[in-house]
Amino acid sequence: MSSPAAQQPSPQLFFQTINAYQRTEGLKAAIELEAFTAIGEGNTTAPEIAKRCGASERGTRILCDFLCIMGFLNKDGSRYSLTPDSAMFLDKRSPAYLGGAIEFISSPMITESFKNFTEVVRKGGTTMTDGGTIAPENPIWVKFARAMAPMMALPAQLTAKLVDPTADRKLKILDIAAGHGLYGLAFAKNNSQASVVALDWPNVLEVAKENARNAGVAERYSTIEGSAFDVDFGAGYDLILLTNFLHHFDPPTNEVLLRKVYAALAEGGRAVTLEFVPNEDRISPPDAAAFSVTMLGSTPSGDAYTFPELESMFTNAGFSRSEIHRLPPSIQQAVISQK
Amino acid sequence: MSSPAAQQPSPQLFFQTINAYQRTEGLKAAIELEAFTAIGEGNTTAPEIAKRCGASERGTRILCDFLCIMGFLNKDGSRYSLTPDSAMFLDKRSPAYLGGAIEFISSPMITESFKNFTEVVRKGGTTMTDGGTIAPENPIWVKFARAMAPMMALPAQLTAKLVDPTADRKLKILDIAAGHGLYGLAFAKNNSQASVVALDWPNVLEVAKENARNAGVAERYSTIEGSAFDVDFGAGYDLILLTNFLHHFDPPTNEVLLRKVYAALAEGGRAVTLEFVPNEDRISPPDAAAFSVTMLGSTPSGDAYTFPELESMFTNAGFSRSEIHRLPPSIQQAVISQK
Repeated sequence: MSSPAAQQPSPQLFFQTINAYQRTEGLKAAIELEAFTAIGEGNTTAPEIAKRCGASERGTRILCDFLCIMGFLNKDGSRYSLTPDSAMFLDKRSPAYLGGAIEFISSPMITESFKNFTEVVRKGGTTMTDGGTIAPENPIWVKFARAMAPMMALPAQLTAKLVDPTADRKLKILDIAAGHGLYGLAFAKNNSQASVVALDWPNVLEVAKENARNAGVAERYSTIEGSAFDVDFGAGYDLILLTNFLHHFDPPTNEVLLRKVYAALAEGGRAVTLEFVPNEDRISPPDAAAFSVTMLGSTPSGDAYTFPELESMFTNAGFSRSEIHRLPPSIQQAVISQK
Repeated sequence: MSSPAAQQPSPQLFFQTINAYQRTEGLKAAIELEAFTAIGEGNTTAPEIAKRCGASERGTRILCDFLCIMGFLNKDGSRYSLTPDSAMFLDKRSPAYLGGAIEFISSPMITESFKNFTEVVRKGGTTMTDGGTIAPENPIWVKFARAMAPMMALPAQLTAKLVDPTADRKLKILDIAAGHGLYGLAFAKNNSQASVVALDWPNVLEVAKENARNAGVAERYSTIEGSAFDVDFGAGYDLILLTNFLHHFDPPTNEVLLRKVYAALAEGGRAVTLEFVPNEDRISPPDAAAFSVTMLGSTPSGDAYTFPELESMFTNAGFSRSEIHRLPPSIQQAVISQK
């Protein structure tokens, strides 16, 4: 008796995965050629899209079919249309356009280590010299600050509302590794009595200051230039933000930083951490858990930490308690730790 | 009223896809480190697997978690185990081991064009010089013949049973672009009165002849060296096999070849084509349809053809009728065309 077809062994997952890199490159090409924008503008057949994108008809037809297979487009006869998510995030004319994020996510600084990932696994950390993405004044973070800002607006706003729901009292906030500055700026926009000190490399802070001016809160915005591990934070902060920062380092390194954070907080102050937080099984939810792979490839000893791991780092640094909050639809979570 | 979370716009697919290349590299690393074999041998925790693979514990733990997320492993507490498919296809000790296929599927000859896929889409074909994979005597095909043979055994056997179910009469078979030779050899093993002429580049035929000797059918196996477009086929064949060949070329080129195939067949002879055949929508089934992307990247004008397109090429070349057959569990299909 033979097993039903569905239960026969199949190499399908092997082939899909070994070719998964084509998905990345297909999406990048579509963004670079502005195929989503072309379709949003009303070009719906392969010849029309090809003309608008300055590309061959054959290449455009195969690319658009691939985008349908991947779920970025719909197809009706020979006409392509944007899915709601593609219209929102991949049409350049949308305020929520994310296509620019490929300048960071797909930059060699992130992808380079994956060209010899076997060696990365052997070594247990990035094979890039000088610590990969955490090298001092790495220009990748200017790219990050410019490319990733659009996708940070929503989680930043959700975080500010979560942490400062009443927005009715004076707050002194330190935004560590501020990058684009959007997290601190969301607090400043949420509460007119909030003042923000942003800390990052000087070249990155230029982007944050530009965003502060655009947000109309420049008079409540100041900066500290340098490494969070080296510079003096000042003191008396009500809130210290650690957004997408702890994942770059190992727990002992984080604890050194967190003791410094603890010391800089006022009594009753809180540290606010935003992270990809996998469950304790470390394999769910899949996107948050898989972030550990990016950290393995691009840092010497970073990781996607579970909540008990984060909690333990904060406890070891002196904090009295930590609690975790979901921020749907973001896959990231906020950990609030009390001095 | 706000929409339920599930229906909120989400950039999840964008991020999963832009990072999909990490899936490819994670799987390749696991194969190169023999992680699946290590687990099959009974090493089930990250430290045990790391030791067996000569890799760091941290890298191994993150890699194995990633393999769970991708569906190649299961995890119970801190113990990893192989899925049935991984045990069958990715443990080196399995006779159906496919890991060697990465030597072809992930070779630069296939992947190189995807490093600038935007340019490929603009141009409408491979950006590699000399026609990419279809360059004369390209050594990639020796690699193909060695690396891909293990995964061809089953579809080859299914094809032989489909085309020659009674196996009770003398058959003269031409195997065009024979590669590893497994398709022709399956017919020879299925029917002791079948003799096979294998056609390919001389360096590739060495692999086919080796496989013919191993299959014990060398005395019914002969070869023609050269390009299928140039050499004399001989005549009077009952069957001519075109397995994974037509997808490299455009329809007019294929029709030139098929007229030559038609002429070389005996009256009542049949051409047997094995291909990735998408439905007429060109976006389903997904794996067969997505094969067009590999052809766009690696050939000047190849494609994954629909059945009506294949049928039309055969009709234009003089064939009276073509019919298509599924070959589960293979995702490829067989087209049988009657002279």
